[in-house]
Amino acid sequence: MNTKILLEEKDMPRKWYNIQADLASPLPPPLNPVTGQPAGPPDLSFFPMNLLEQEMTAERWIDIPDPVLEKLLIWRPTPLYRAVRLEKFLETPAHIYFKHEGMSPAGSHKPNTAVPQAYYNKIAGTKRLTTETGAGQWGAALAFACSQFGLELKVYMVRVSYNQKPYRRMMMETWGASCVPSPSPDTAAGRGFLAENPEHAGSLGIAISEAVEDAMESKDTKYSLGSVLNHVLMHQTVVGLEAQAQMAKAGEYPDVVIACVGGGSNFAGMTFPFVRDKMNGKSIRIIACEPTSCPTLTKGPYVYDFGDTVGKTPLMAMHSLGHAFMPAPIHAGGLRYHGMAPLVSKVLQDGLIEAKAFTQTQTFTAGVTFARTEGFIPAPETNHAIACMIDEAKRAKEEGKEKVILMNWSGHGLVDLASYDAFLSGNLEDIVLQDDEVQRLMKDLDKFPKP
Amino acid sequence: MNTKILLEEKDMPRKWYNIQADLASPLPPPLNPVTGQPAGPPDLSFFPMNLLEQEMTAERWIDIPDPVLEKLLIWRPTPLYRAVRLEKFLETPAHIYFKHEGMSPAGSHKPNTAVPQAYYNKIAGTKRLTTETGAGQWGAALAFACSQFGLELKVYMVRVSYNQKPYRRMMMETWGASCVPSPSPDTAAGRGFLAENPEHAGSLGIAISEAVEDAMESKDTKYSLGSVLNHVLMHQTVVGLEAQAQMAKAGEYPDVVIACVGGGSNFAGMTFPFVRDKMNGKSIRIIACEPTSCPTLTKGPYVYDFGDTVGKTPLMAMHSLGHAFMPAPIHAGGLRYHGMAPLVSKVLQDGLIEAKAFTQTQTFTAGVTFARTEGFIPAPETNHAIACMIDEAKRAKEEGKEKVILMNWSGHGLVDLASYDAFLSGNLEDIVLQDDEVQRLMKDLDKFPKP
Repeated sequence: MNTKILLEEKDMPRKWYNIQADLASPLPPPLNPVTGQPAGPPDLSFFPMNLLEQEMTAERWIDIPDPVLEKLLIWRPTPLYRAVRLEKFLETPAHIYFKHEGMSPAGSHKPNTAVPQAYYNKIAGTKRLTTETGAGQWGAALAFACSQFGLELKVYMVRVSYNQKPYRRMMMETWGASCVPSPSPDTAAGRGFLAENPEHAGSLGIAISEAVEDAMESKDTKYSLGSVLNHVLMHQTVVGLEAQAQMAKAGEYPDVVIACVGGGSNFAGMTFPFVRDKMNGKSIRIIACEPTSCPTLTKGPYVYDFGDTVGKTPLMAMHSLGHAFMPAPIHAGGLRYHGMAPLVSKVLQDGLIEAKAFTQTQTFTAGVTFARTEGFIPAPETNHAIACMIDEAKRAKEEGKEKVILMNWSGHGLVDLASYDAFLSGNLEDIVLQDDEVQRLMKDLDKFPKP
Repeated sequence: MNTKILLEEKDMPRKWYNIQADLASPLPPPLNPVTGQPAGPPDLSFFPMNLLEQEMTAERWIDIPDPVLEKLLIWRPTPLYRAVRLEKFLETPAHIYFKHEGMSPAGSHKPNTAVPQAYYNKIAGTKRLTTETGAGQWGAALAFACSQFGLELKVYMVRVSYNQKPYRRMMMETWGASCVPSPSPDTAAGRGFLAENPEHAGSLGIAISEAVEDAMESKDTKYSLGSVLNHVLMHQTVVGLEAQAQMAKAGEYPDVVIACVGGGSNFAGMTFPFVRDKMNGKSIRIIACEPTSCPTLTKGPYVYDFGDTVGKTPLMAMHSLGHAFMPAPIHAGGLRYHGMAPLVSKVLQDGLIEAKAFTQTQTFTAGVTFARTEGFIPAPETNHAIACMIDEAKRAKEEGKEKVILMNWSGHGLVDLASYDAFLSGNLEDIVLQDDEVQRLMKDLDKFPKP
């Protein structure tokens, strides 16, 4: 009857896995956009030095400090579930496992990196952090982490989300953070956009620009990013490392590992330990699931591009739809990013993973099926992985194969219920980004070097 | 470093504890309000016979059927936490433990009884259930349970909550239930109230009347109640039974057990196994925590009264503020009930438990302290128990005593964040029900027998 595979606290991973140690060729370095030379710490002075060291290191295993472990244990290790009710509903011979990352106080995988980032800033002497957030998952997670380490936090939240999705702002404030709509009058970047349009809806790129500017110009203040960067992805590998131990406990090994992908941290956290197995000869498929409206991996070329919209960050080698791309306002706010983590882009380039895109209708159809069988209501982002997982389970049925499927259930949807309401009342729009639009967006990048 | 005390699935309780077996004197029976005679199954035909048998039984231990156990294992056993960060913040020598009932798909303890109620209805041939809900915790839990057993569900949701708190309605619909604002045009009772006032805000009592009427007049339909009744309280005892096993694993036994109380099921679920210990000679304090605006146990006398507002239910012997009492619109919607479970009322009468009342400001101050130390954001109802627990921990500090405190963390507050927003922006009202108002409300009950 056991459908949950649990680990004891003592089985919690004590080290993060750094995939940089195992790549066949080195990751193309970030570039200073002016000089075209590899960017160094001076280009990234809005991060503390200890995190920049983690960003650059080629050590395979990095110790998780005890004070970080102690906070991660608030909700970790998370359970791995065998989705027996969904299997039965689908009449599939597949064995479906999902890793439940919705147990954290913020309800998603994001605290896995928010906690170490707050910790490393704390010991580096940072008193205050700034960050940006779209739908608010990241801002909420960092607010939780900052409350645990006694750091101040200011969150620049994309104005359209700030107005439409007040619950995650309220979560941030409950944990003691301050949260303002972006563009805000608090930064030069924000004032510029407000001068153009006092009601400016904002974007993730603008909010990043504001948070970086604030960090660079305020005393004892650093900036924190919730995805994309190497160290952020590495912090998430506790997910995949736990899942490996749990699959072993279940006496199985996955044929397919599935996760949704926006900036890349959720995907990398689950899959990089399995990518390592694959590099070591294991036969395994690894699938990144993204929206058709923001198909960074399936349609975006591998280029050098800015991480933000206005060009405050170094250039990064990644799959991108162009820094000027403004993703459609889909409900999976966490997947609305023009670029992709350089490490995720690299393993796709290296043929170690594959990518698939799904429409909103596909993802919410899958999410409702999941909620009505397995009980837990998934986040809109998570539904992308569920759609892919159900496709794989159906194919296993057609092929009559007892395939083992593992997916990362990245968070719950209890603060995103309006998206289910839109789906159930027939008000979801399916948007597919067209190839000619991608080609048009790429013209902005002609001036940059090629990775 | 272990702060979570976990149980394996095999350690999940296999039986519910029925406190009726251990009472010093029998519970006064429910009465037919017309005849004044003990009510029997014909007075309660809107429940299936198997649940009525559970309601009446004096067996001490009732087996949990395997199909119920299987569903409870979706999220059970729940973790027991040692609140080390809160202890440190309070500088208290007390050992504080909380039982985390927010891990269920619906986010509260309510599915503990929703699942068996759906199951027993299923095997009794019920095709469709009706229920009422205030803030929506119960409606959401039953929607989840009905989706697990393939039952239709119609929820009558108090109109003011339906309009102000759409997220729990959306949860119900995601799980496939239908949810209408009450009073509704779908029942005679509802039409009566709408004729008086087309914009009628509704009340829990009115919604109960509608749900009962619907169940009595529809084919293959029964009614389900989320608290108050004996069998509902019994289903919740998995909480206290698990907590006993977990405290033993921690090598401690509580000096004080604390839970919030509205209709009584959350309180009874945690405390009745400990009340049994107390009846068997253990020295232990057991505290029920309620709002000062709805002080059923601390100000309401022990009387016979209706369970609903319009008088469709039998009379029950309980602490009550009078069936006509309309509780103030506090954020802890789950504690806004004029009456109290007969079993909880009885153990208070028998001197086995005590009761305390708290203002909204006291409870949210405590809730924010909890969120900023232990991380998890509690439901507004849960904050009543936290306020009491913090008081006890402070007293332990004053007295220099290493007191062991156990509380039931009944649910998370992620769908109730607007209440935190109101608190943090200084917009909470503190309401204390006055004695003369209680005396006035009691006049309605003069015509009923006394227990």
